[in-house]
Amino acid sequence: MSETGARRGRGRRPAEEVRTRVLAATATLLFDEGLRSVTFDRVAHASGSSKTTLYKWWPSPGALAAEAYFASSVQTLEFHDTGDVRHDIRTQLRAFVRLLTDSRAGTVIAELIGAAQTDPELARALSTTYTLPRRRLAIDCIELARERGQLRHDVDADLLVDQLWGACYNRLLIPDNPLNEAYADALVDNTLRGAASETYRQELDGHGA
Amino acid sequence: MSETGARRGRGRRPAEEVRTRVLAATATLLFDEGLRSVTFDRVAHASGSSKTTLYKWWPSPGALAAEAYFASSVQTLEFHDTGDVRHDIRTQLRAFVRLLTDSRAGTVIAELIGAAQTDPELARALSTTYTLPRRRLAIDCIELARERGQLRHDVDADLLVDQLWGACYNRLLIPDNPLNEAYADALVDNTLRGAASETYRQELDGHGA
Repeated sequence: MSETGARRGRGRRPAEEVRTRVLAATATLLFDEGLRSVTFDRVAHASGSSKTTLYKWWPSPGALAAEAYFASSVQTLEFHDTGDVRHDIRTQLRAFVRLLTDSRAGTVIAELIGAAQTDPELARALSTTYTLPRRRLAIDCIELARERGQLRHDVDADLLVDQLWGACYNRLLIPDNPLNEAYADALVDNTLRGAASETYRQELDGHGA
Repeated sequence: MSETGARRGRGRRPAEEVRTRVLAATATLLFDEGLRSVTFDRVAHASGSSKTTLYKWWPSPGALAAEAYFASSVQTLEFHDTGDVRHDIRTQLRAFVRLLTDSRAGTVIAELIGAAQTDPELARALSTTYTLPRRRLAIDCIELARERGQLRHDVDADLLVDQLWGACYNRLLIPDNPLNEAYADALVDNTLRGAASETYRQELDGHGA
């Protein structure tokens, strides 16, 4: 009763505002208490939205969790185009590694990927809502560098994404070796040395990589 | 009673034989029914060993599962030294990809890594019993190539392992793109082009990689 009253008091909220509020409440649960705490009941309660709204927009709590993780990291993980692919990827990869290691984000995404191994619906949601959109941004950056002639014309952008961000996920999920900014730099150097056009390679070697 | 009788009838079995039998029984459970089926009760029953023996040798069912997975894949994943690092890594990486995709091994190791994200004891066991020993074999192969002058002297062997096998694990755990032998070959080419000494690089380029 009081909840209905409160909602009526606020009046109709535009969809985008509700969405943002739901994603923020989900991210808080996810980061504070882990994936298991993300249920439609708890998110509805924390965000002041109805469960009907949640069911309408998200196929499952896992899908909601994956999108909340994406939304919470989108600014930190932005790519900036300065014209030098090594500089741009290095900057973003360092930010990615810091996010995974300095905050609870690493634990959260490891838990999401872990749970996805035995939960096909979560796996689909994670792919659609997180890993594919993030991969797209990295591929855009790599394709731009290819058009500029910094990377070989036959370079496989998806493969480079795996050798950069995938290698970091590997250290996150199987933590046999340290995941830090020095590692990010070394990944960029080896990957780009392999993928560079002849001209850009000479430039890279000139930088004393 | 009858179990004791049966064991007495067989006489004392040498430790190595018991160990092999336990690992084989565990692998069967793991591949047929998944990680959750690997309990000391079921393994004791299936292998005809006592739970006391299991507790003596393995700290947890997870540790036993990880070792059984290692033992079941050790032959398939052997490295052979022909003197050409590209050939040797490519052959092994193709075998690794085939193992992950043609058999239930991929599902099993994905489930082990997935469960390790929320089970620190399993994570430790997986690292000690599977990922570190496997990594060691790959590093030996890379170090040999470095000594031969095929790879740069400052090459980071652990990083190359992440960019080859780690990238495959990435496609296994986050299956946004196909994991197959062509992918294995492309990984080897880009990684070794990045890590090759000047001489070996010319040789690789001559091969038309």
